[in-house]
Amino acid sequence: METFPITFDDVRFAAENLAGVAHRTPIHSSRSLDARSGCRVFLKCEQFQRGGAFKFRGAYNAISRLSAEERARGIVAFSSGNHAQGVALAARILGVPAVICMPDDAPGVKLAATREYGAEVLIYTRTAVDREQFARAVAEERGLTIIPPYDHPHIIAGQGTAALELLTDQPDLDALVCPIGGGGLIAGCAVAAKGLKPDIRIFGVETEGADDVRQSLRAGKRVSISPPTTIADGIRTTAPGRLTFPIIQQYVEDVLLVSDEQVVETMRYLLLRLKLLVEPTGAVALAAMMAGALPADCRRVGVLLSGGNIDPALLAKLW
Amino acid sequence: METFPITFDDVRFAAENLAGVAHRTPIHSSRSLDARSGCRVFLKCEQFQRGGAFKFRGAYNAISRLSAEERARGIVAFSSGNHAQGVALAARILGVPAVICMPDDAPGVKLAATREYGAEVLIYTRTAVDREQFARAVAEERGLTIIPPYDHPHIIAGQGTAALELLTDQPDLDALVCPIGGGGLIAGCAVAAKGLKPDIRIFGVETEGADDVRQSLRAGKRVSISPPTTIADGIRTTAPGRLTFPIIQQYVEDVLLVSDEQVVETMRYLLLRLKLLVEPTGAVALAAMMAGALPADCRRVGVLLSGGNIDPALLAKLW
Repeated sequence: METFPITFDDVRFAAENLAGVAHRTPIHSSRSLDARSGCRVFLKCEQFQRGGAFKFRGAYNAISRLSAEERARGIVAFSSGNHAQGVALAARILGVPAVICMPDDAPGVKLAATREYGAEVLIYTRTAVDREQFARAVAEERGLTIIPPYDHPHIIAGQGTAALELLTDQPDLDALVCPIGGGGLIAGCAVAAKGLKPDIRIFGVETEGADDVRQSLRAGKRVSISPPTTIADGIRTTAPGRLTFPIIQQYVEDVLLVSDEQVVETMRYLLLRLKLLVEPTGAVALAAMMAGALPADCRRVGVLLSGGNIDPALLAKLW
Repeated sequence: METFPITFDDVRFAAENLAGVAHRTPIHSSRSLDARSGCRVFLKCEQFQRGGAFKFRGAYNAISRLSAEERARGIVAFSSGNHAQGVALAARILGVPAVICMPDDAPGVKLAATREYGAEVLIYTRTAVDREQFARAVAEERGLTIIPPYDHPHIIAGQGTAALELLTDQPDLDALVCPIGGGGLIAGCAVAAKGLKPDIRIFGVETEGADDVRQSLRAGKRVSISPPTTIADGIRTTAPGRLTFPIIQQYVEDVLLVSDEQVVETMRYLLLRLKLLVEPTGAVALAAMMAGALPADCRRVGVLLSGGNIDPALLAKLW
């Protein structure tokens, strides 16, 4: 039997590690939102985290835990999204050389942002190469340490600090709602939230067609799906992680589904009414709430807005 | 000789009045912004104020100070913008009937938001009717009290609470930068800031062509200009207020000018990098900072982001 991937103490340790480096992100609330949703909603605003998403938390925690020798040799990560920027920024702060492998169809703004943080970007042809194999070959050739996007104890523990902060500021929550991609954020947040408040209810949210975790939970084992086409690019994963899944099984009560249309409507609402910019994945958890998908007895609900790194071209198309 | 329109105590009294009703808006800072501007910048985020702009502060303070009889009869305001929403929301909270006179070319979203707050909206033909005369006629006919957009001691004192909060949270500021429309915000903020820190330097910002206050300061008296066409609709006033101008003369070191293009560039930067949505007027003060218009020895600068009520059609055109 495997041991459980991380404990509450790992999250607390990560929080000490991140103190003074990561932002303690603000929690926004709104009377208009409360009236619309029928409960008290607390939005944990990770779009205001360094790098524009929660990813910096895990990346910094993981890189800072490497040995001096590993840090001197450098790290490599594969991502076309927020993990790339989180790793690049954390590596720069820690003075660690970073290589980021990105697909040839990654948006120009993400390439530019990753390079701006000082990382070397290696482009691979998405249709021709498996990204993990590509990164592994680069790592081996150059002696670099791979920083995976979610399936690593230090990554999971780092992401959990978002919920640690939220529950410290708002201890009376009944429920926590969180988007699920590979599961790093919800797994870490579940460990943190259950550690502080054992009776809190944890809900994950995926978009329709990107429901690998929901299917896996129902099947009782990790299920793989075809690459989904949802607007929420952060949850286009095809299977939950090997380490994140047992945590999700233990702690997550249910995985709710929302449509891309509900995600877009929620992004519009957040931006025009609450003046909060989120990327599609960042709106997924609130979309489930606003669709009334949560059990009616959840009265005080924490909602993770996971990030705000939106492609300007998409932003222009929202109206 | 006239007495000075408001004192620091008026702002403190307004703050007590607003406690628990207005939001204490957050202050955002950013390493990227500090690096770009070469100083420490503290953004006072009034887009997160109730009603989406600082206007709620003054409106609530003014309406709450009316007599029971005046409140029972109701109030009237003329505005196509944030003052309308601030007044409508404050009136609803205080249970005061509100009439808002809006021009026939006001954006549909602003009409809808004002009605949503429960106000009666009276439409007048902008080209045919003077809005002040129209409001005065309505007030007289129905026995309503006019809540003016800026030229009233309780309005000015209410707006000043934004700077009171900023300087309380960040007492070590060298300078405060603030957009100027009719002057209510900068006048109130100047009184508050100078009251807390007499050596703080106050700068106003207007857009090119909307420089009535800059011209007035140079002329030593209130100067009227033709209606300006700037993108920053909150500063399309043609002259400073009778009450706000002497405060500006006493406390404001200089009025800086920015172009509409600089405003748009700053809005894009705020949204994409800092994930902060502001309307054009909300970006004006930061635009001056980023253009390097501030004296070089201002090292710790407070910047008022005045509001975030942007027309979705304009938002779509920013990219």
